[in-house]
Amino acid sequence: MTLADLAAALGCPFEGDGSLNIVRVAKIEQAGPGDLTFLANMKYAHALATTGASAVIAPPGVTAPCAVIRTAEPYVALARAAAALAPDDRPPAGVHLRADVDGSAQVDASASIGAYAVVGPGARIGARTILHPHVVVGAGASIGPDCLLHAHVSIRERCTLGARVVVQNGAVIGSDGYGFATSADGSHIKIPQVGPVILEDDVEVGANTTIDRPAVGETRIQAGTKIDNLVQIGHGVVLGRNVLLAAQVGIAGSTRVGDSVTFGGQVGVGGHLTIGDGVKAVGQSGITNSVDAGAFISGYPAIDNREWRKASVVFRRLPEMRQRLRELERRLEALDKA
Amino acid sequence: MTLADLAAALGCPFEGDGSLNIVRVAKIEQAGPGDLTFLANMKYAHALATTGASAVIAPPGVTAPCAVIRTAEPYVALARAAAALAPDDRPPAGVHLRADVDGSAQVDASASIGAYAVVGPGARIGARTILHPHVVVGAGASIGPDCLLHAHVSIRERCTLGARVVVQNGAVIGSDGYGFATSADGSHIKIPQVGPVILEDDVEVGANTTIDRPAVGETRIQAGTKIDNLVQIGHGVVLGRNVLLAAQVGIAGSTRVGDSVTFGGQVGVGGHLTIGDGVKAVGQSGITNSVDAGAFISGYPAIDNREWRKASVVFRRLPEMRQRLRELERRLEALDKA
Amino acid sequence: MTLADLAAALGCPFEGDGSLNIVRVAKIEQAGPGDLTFLANMKYAHALATTGASAVIAPPGVTAPCAVIRTAEPYVALARAAAALAPDDRPPAGVHLRADVDGSAQVDASASIGAYAVVGPGARIGARTILHPHVVVGAGASIGPDCLLHAHVSIRERCTLGARVVVQNGAVIGSDGYGFATSADGSHIKIPQVGPVILEDDVEVGANTTIDRPAVGETRIQAGTKIDNLVQIGHGVVLGRNVLLAAQVGIAGSTRVGDSVTFGGQVGVGGHLTIGDGVKAVGQSGITNSVDAGAFISGYPAIDNREWRKASVVFRRLPEMRQRLRELERRLEALDKA
Repeated sequence: MTLADLAAALGCPFEGDGSLNIVRVAKIEQAGPGDLTFLANMKYAHALATTGASAVIAPPGVTAPCAVIRTAEPYVALARAAAALAPDDRPPAGVHLRADVDGSAQVDASASIGAYAVVGPGARIGARTILHPHVVVGAGASIGPDCLLHAHVSIRERCTLGARVVVQNGAVIGSDGYGFATSADGSHIKIPQVGPVILEDDVEVGANTTIDRPAVGETRIQAGTKIDNLVQIGHGVVLGRNVLLAAQVGIAGSTRVGDSVTFGGQVGVGGHLTIGDGVKAVGQSGITNSVDAGAFISGYPAIDNREWRKASVVFRRLPEMRQRLRELERRLEALDKA
Repeated sequence: MTLADLAAALGCPFEGDGSLNIVRVAKIEQAGPGDLTFLANMKYAHALATTGASAVIAPPGVTAPCAVIRTAEPYVALARAAAALAPDDRPPAGVHLRADVDGSAQVDASASIGAYAVVGPGARIGARTILHPHVVVGAGASIGPDCLLHAHVSIRERCTLGARVVVQNGAVIGSDGYGFATSADGSHIKIPQVGPVILEDDVEVGANTTIDRPAVGETRIQAGTKIDNLVQIGHGVVLGRNVLLAAQVGIAGSTRVGDSVTFGGQVGVGGHLTIGDGVKAVGQSGITNSVDAGAFISGYPAIDNREWRKASVVFRRLPEMRQRLRELERRLEALDKA
Repeated sequence: MTLADLAAALGCPFEGDGSLNIVRVAKIEQAGPGDLTFLANMKYAHALATTGASAVIAPPGVTAPCAVIRTAEPYVALARAAAALAPDDRPPAGVHLRADVDGSAQVDASASIGAYAVVGPGARIGARTILHPHVVVGAGASIGPDCLLHAHVSIRERCTLGARVVVQNGAVIGSDGYGFATSADGSHIKIPQVGPVILEDDVEVGANTTIDRPAVGETRIQAGTKIDNLVQIGHGVVLGRNVLLAAQVGIAGSTRVGDSVTFGGQVGVGGHLTIGDGVKAVGQSGITNSVDAGAFISGYPAIDNREWRKASVVFRRLPEMRQRLRELERRLEALDKA
């Protein structure tokens, strides 16, 4: 792809030789001829002087020893450039001979259904949507247009995916929520979980992540939310728009998470809580109470991040503090006697 | 389903119009005509006065503005009512044309084997058991009657499932335990893991959960135990009866867990420990030592819950406490000089 | 297998009746006739006197009431003996009639491709490698010789596995890394993840573990490293040689882990860190900074294990310490007044 074509595709002006051939994206220090690099964080600006890249995506005012694509949002432009340069792995449209599509399912003619995929009775598959091999879509499920479902994904019965939803390998959408009624003899009786899971437009779900369906109502992931691998979403949870959940996060049932919330890896959240818009929690935080919008929290139980960091620094001094306490008591005892 | 029929199916008396049509289960505040709701926790009793439900499952002594099904165990009755009202998703009996069942496997004629399911040599599938599409049952494995295995489940060779076992999508029963012998040069030599995993009657296993097989002996999950999603059970573990493990719990090898134990999400348990009957651990606890029956524990290392909560409250005061300690030392110094 | 043949296979001398028939491996206390047991830890030496085993693997100098295979590395010899005695579960060579192998893929004639396995365009499968049913190998992926891929494994496009790599059920090699650029309106734009994951020789990956591919560069797991179940490896991570990661560990993107590092279960590691050779972290540690070679760490944030243990002991005394602090302040106040 030429630099001029790429810049046009991004809708950005460029400086330098528009006929340069751009082949792939690379980091500033590793880039060579044919590579496009980017400067999204000014702390790496010094490295730009010696880059071997053919071109760089950079904000206004930055000078470079190579061609430049100008934009105030270099990282976003990089994402779009990388998409334009990515290998075209799109399988052909149509249903593979070795797929099993129920006669009552509606599959758009432009969709691609891979080998051994199963599409159940009454399910719908939208335009240009790709089901890679071994995807199983249950009865009555609905998948919108331009979705990408990787191998071994399960979409359970009656769940709904909007447009442009991406689900990585092995993820499960609509497994039964963990709901049991305990009888007097201690045995646990299953409460059927029949409500749907709904993934709105532009949601992404990571590999082997599980999203549970509820007994009543629905589990809903709102538009633009991105979920990493091995995450657990309990039944009846609502995640707001543009939420980011890093790997191995777990959210217990019926909790509501606001828009643009960010959780680091392995964060755990209790059930029936309300997490306000824009909350950030660092990795491994344990959230046991509802959290006000905009809070930045850490620890278990999770508290204000600044407060937690200060207390954590003192934690390792605990043995010394106890020693000093003993010493004070001894000295005061001596004073009292004197 | 009429109210009278539903009450008869539950074996409970009812008050009101027995010919009422009941369609689904709903929460007290959201219920409308045709809905059955329930009162299992008296703190929601006030909401009952304004419910739009056609009927409610309620304990003796509670009055309602609608028909009532009476029982001392409302939540258990709800579970049974929801099962009676749930959509019948049962696939037809028989082996799908696109399944691969070994000639030496024994599949009951009333069982249902879905598309692309694989049943290995010598495996047995019990009466009325359902294998959804893409279930793989290894050589010599045995699945009892009335089991429900969702899509993409792996039951590895020589493992055994009792009656009425439910396994959610993508779970793995009988993966190799993590056992290696480290040689003098630092390389790790695999110890073959050939023992079986045994799931007794009425066990449920969540989506993408993994239960490992041991090198010697067995891994056993006793009757009635319910395991949530993304849980890891190490090789040689024994879980007692009616245990509840929330999502993302991990239990290391050879640990024995007693009856009716309850672990919150993301709890971690070390290897070779003994956890007594009825122990409860809150989410994210890290259990590093054996625990006596009946204990209620938290934190890492896990200690008595009450003690942990009190210490946690003080934790955030650590910087202030250090400051007060310094101040005391300064004042005592001044006193000493005086 | 006779004792003499087994000892010869292990390259170890033996004492006792070489014609003894050895059937399986068992623990010292549970072993009976036909069983081979082992003494790897001298604290179990007392149990040897009463074992019912036919033979024991033991270090020099230990006497036993049965036949003995002598070696200075009993646990390594046990691993090899167990492999020799394990049931031969090897499926026949060749491509199953119900597998889908692309015409441009290269599959060695000695490899075994199971039912419903998919091998994409240009992929290569090495000699004697086994793909169990439902394994999906993407376009251009390369699997070396003597690999073992269990049911439901996904190897994504262009990833590479060396020789003797084992991947347990449901694991995903090469899912998209979690990389998004956030635009001014708060939406997250996906950065295509096109780099490969490379698993070197003798790597083992546990069930339902996920290893992400990066946008640029590669994700690499070096030779001999063993990863347990439900582990998350972020994009661009490099794991050194002979690393051991227990279940549910999570390592964020671009972190480099040295040789022979050992992490307990549920350890979390931040992104862009460097973990030195031989570091050990106990279960549930949260590693937020780079760690020097040889360190033994615990807690969150992770600190020296010895220091953490001492501070943890004092943690539960915090309420009492605060009380003592108050008492000191009161007494000093009284002294001041006097």
